[in-house]
Amino acid sequence: MISRTDAEALDRRDPLAHLREQFLLPDGLIYLDGNSLGALPKAVPGRIQQVVRHEWGQGLIRSWNEARWMELPQRVGAKIAPLIGAAADEVIVTDSTSVNLFKLLAAALALQQRQGRRVILSERSNFPTDLYMAEGARAFLASRPELRYAPADRLVENMTAEVAVLTLTHVDFRTGYRHDLESLTAAAHRNGILTLWDLSHSTGILPIELNRIGADLAVGCGYKYLNGGPGAPAFLYVRRDLQDKLRQPLAGWMGHRDPFAFDPAYAPSGGIARMLCGTPTVLSIVALDAALDLWRDIDLAEVRAKSVALAGLFISAIEAEGLAEIALASPRDPERRGSQVCFRHPDAYAVVQALIAAGVIGDFRTPDIMRFGLAPLYLRYVDVFEAARRLVDILRERRWDRAEFRRRRAVT
Amino acid sequence: MISRTDAEALDRRDPLAHLREQFLLPDGLIYLDGNSLGALPKAVPGRIQQVVRHEWGQGLIRSWNEARWMELPQRVGAKIAPLIGAAADEVIVTDSTSVNLFKLLAAALALQQRQGRRVILSERSNFPTDLYMAEGARAFLASRPELRYAPADRLVENMTAEVAVLTLTHVDFRTGYRHDLESLTAAAHRNGILTLWDLSHSTGILPIELNRIGADLAVGCGYKYLNGGPGAPAFLYVRRDLQDKLRQPLAGWMGHRDPFAFDPAYAPSGGIARMLCGTPTVLSIVALDAALDLWRDIDLAEVRAKSVALAGLFISAIEAEGLAEIALASPRDPERRGSQVCFRHPDAYAVVQALIAAGVIGDFRTPDIMRFGLAPLYLRYVDVFEAARRLVDILRERRWDRAEFRRRRAVT
Repeated sequence: MISRTDAEALDRRDPLAHLREQFLLPDGLIYLDGNSLGALPKAVPGRIQQVVRHEWGQGLIRSWNEARWMELPQRVGAKIAPLIGAAADEVIVTDSTSVNLFKLLAAALALQQRQGRRVILSERSNFPTDLYMAEGARAFLASRPELRYAPADRLVENMTAEVAVLTLTHVDFRTGYRHDLESLTAAAHRNGILTLWDLSHSTGILPIELNRIGADLAVGCGYKYLNGGPGAPAFLYVRRDLQDKLRQPLAGWMGHRDPFAFDPAYAPSGGIARMLCGTPTVLSIVALDAALDLWRDIDLAEVRAKSVALAGLFISAIEAEGLAEIALASPRDPERRGSQVCFRHPDAYAVVQALIAAGVIGDFRTPDIMRFGLAPLYLRYVDVFEAARRLVDILRERRWDRAEFRRRRAVT
Repeated sequence: MISRTDAEALDRRDPLAHLREQFLLPDGLIYLDGNSLGALPKAVPGRIQQVVRHEWGQGLIRSWNEARWMELPQRVGAKIAPLIGAAADEVIVTDSTSVNLFKLLAAALALQQRQGRRVILSERSNFPTDLYMAEGARAFLASRPELRYAPADRLVENMTAEVAVLTLTHVDFRTGYRHDLESLTAAAHRNGILTLWDLSHSTGILPIELNRIGADLAVGCGYKYLNGGPGAPAFLYVRRDLQDKLRQPLAGWMGHRDPFAFDPAYAPSGGIARMLCGTPTVLSIVALDAALDLWRDIDLAEVRAKSVALAGLFISAIEAEGLAEIALASPRDPERRGSQVCFRHPDAYAVVQALIAAGVIGDFRTPDIMRFGLAPLYLRYVDVFEAARRLVDILRERRWDRAEFRRRRAVT
């Protein structure tokens, strides 16, 4: 069994240990929910104040040019690009993950319609809002898409000649199960299918190589492991050679070839900018922009190694107790996992509430999942050791209140 | 001719004069572009800091409940409602104006399709991004809409039995021309047509009475006269009795009846919440929220009266000089105008640049329009008097540089 001393030794050897100082964390709290809302990077409050007081307050309308607000979608996208193995001009930051998913689904369906392909292939356990966007596409789009759901192990056999686009979340929001992005993309391509990956739960916790794999389309979230703040704008990736072939329905003035010509007819910009719609939400984007500066000198392989080690420590510390009623819900093989560890427990909601009361923030996911996100940039091995210890104590002593009301939690 | 002394006397009698102190304005600058980006309210920087440092940094994920982030779209919408004559539960704040317009267009078209109606009626001079969204609808929606453009004075005769929805910007972004919202809505209703108004250039400068008029649908911008900050989220209005009849394609998890059930099938929330899509952009919405507190004790009739008086002063001070080459481009009748005053001039771009160099920020709109927005909450009569004087001096002395490069300006 690992001891607290062992955990402290791991922290001393951690090549990422210095990054914790780059965050403003509440004293005495162990935060295992960075997969829902990332912690606050130290650089953010000052940057936002500067933008509000100086760029907005003093610069006013001039800041669209002088502070380069116009280029924010591209500039911030370029900072995300290396985290997902893309080129700088293949990523933009705009709108929400859901809205971006809709744009890319509609664009992919329109392109594939020419080949008589109109099925959207996904899995029923995909993040619900991604499925809702596919439902919206089915109900509203002229390409008349159909939805087909298959379990993870039957996706490939469902890649038939009617399928236009495969859309999946790389890492499952509930269990942390990680799809094999490379082999599924390759199988899709062998069958003439475009891939649209939701990278919300994988960006910033493991290396992703979209270009090497030849992935087509992707979206992802700014407020989880990227620490962009609550409801941060999302990102969107389109492989370069696809960019000029795609048209999308939410084609607003920011995606026009010349927005300030105010031409009554739409003409798409070249490149990825045609995926833009309305005016960028400057205050939200700059928070993400400042948060992303943290990644400049980070090696994602080190982040991944620490994520795997933290998860291993957490799982073994809990399982060593041999407690009844609790069972690992995440894949045991780290290769099949993102950076979250989930356990099933019949009283999962009440146990999570008891754990929060004991100073450890984890998460409940209906119906019986306790979810713990491990953000390697600001978590220490001792934090994870201590979290496991408190959870074990609660379970062993049965210190939870079954009558606890199930309250709504806004986390994904 | 009005003198500077007269303008000062008007300021002393101005019932809204005290509001200027509620803004952080650059020293010595006269800002006539509040119709593009409103000035910074004093309450905003502190509120954002509090949200960033305390709610995000300390509260972390708990703030979705404890700081009531989940309810921001509704709470901020309820603050806008009285400005447009709507009930609190008829307005939400979310996404961009363009995205919201697309949602409501698609929803209206789907509803009207049952009556065999599929034409979107608008005018070619409508704000271009609004037309682009209609083009996107035409190209992508299964309801197969057609676009029909008519000039303002021929809209009513074009309200035929094929028309599903009339969509117009209440106040024209270029000239400040104001449509008669009431008579056009009544004419549309007589002909079985739904109305979708873009209130971006009218909210906050004149009383709007959507409920009394029976208007169906509306969208509007948060960053102009509402002073919500660069790229602030937009608002969306749906008349209460229509809310449960409408379905829209961007139906994301925030519009689901029970977002945290994570049901793979979408079931729309009752009421206006079904118009929501992704997670709210908290940092941008709270800036707008803080800015809206200014309006609590403001009488919009007083705002309108001051707007008309400022415009009258500006027009008469310029026209009194009898200068060649400059001509009023806005309607002379205040009843047909929003809160902006535009002049045509063959060298409009260069003249605006010269005026900016002289400390007055106005705006150029292609091809030959000088546009001046008059925001009654922070503009004084002496500001407008002084702006007119400087413009007249530049024109009289021909102090502009024709060779000035036309630079891109991000303003609407």
